[in-house]
Amino acid sequence: MLIKLGVTLRDIRKSKNLSQEELSIKCNLHRTYIGMVERGEKNITITSLIKITDALGIDLIYFFKSFDER
Amino acid sequence: MLIKLGVTLRDIRKSKNLSQEELSIKCNLHRTYIGMVERGEKNITITSLIKITDALGIDLIYFFKSFDER
Repeated sequence: MLIKLGVTLRDIRKSKNLSQEELSIKCNLHRTYIGMVERGEKNITITSLIKITDALGIDLIYFFKSFDER
Repeated sequence: MLIKLGVTLRDIRKSKNLSQEELSIKCNLHRTYIGMVERGEKNITITSLIKITDALGIDLIYFFKSFDER
């Protein structure tokens, strides 16, 4: 489940043409942390997930719809 | 935001006629933890949130729609 979440995030990030580094700056989280989340190595908190989805310009409903469609 | 999330969870739990204790048993999390989440005192991880929404018989999209409607 965390792996699927990470893949969903990575695909949305790439669709926005953002590197991990650019995203990390936009959402004020460490690039290493973004990498770990995208690989499913981190059990992300809801506030960090919202920081990331905000930085990607999407909301959580859009995110979990993308997640469910996988 | 965590407070709004907690209130959303509490209202959905009550609409299912579950006590904190009954919910905690269903989702295998401590009752004290459920109480802290409902009061917005815990930055919940995505896996714990899914345990709770599963136990409530709802999905994350339903949950965040209820959250947004507040």
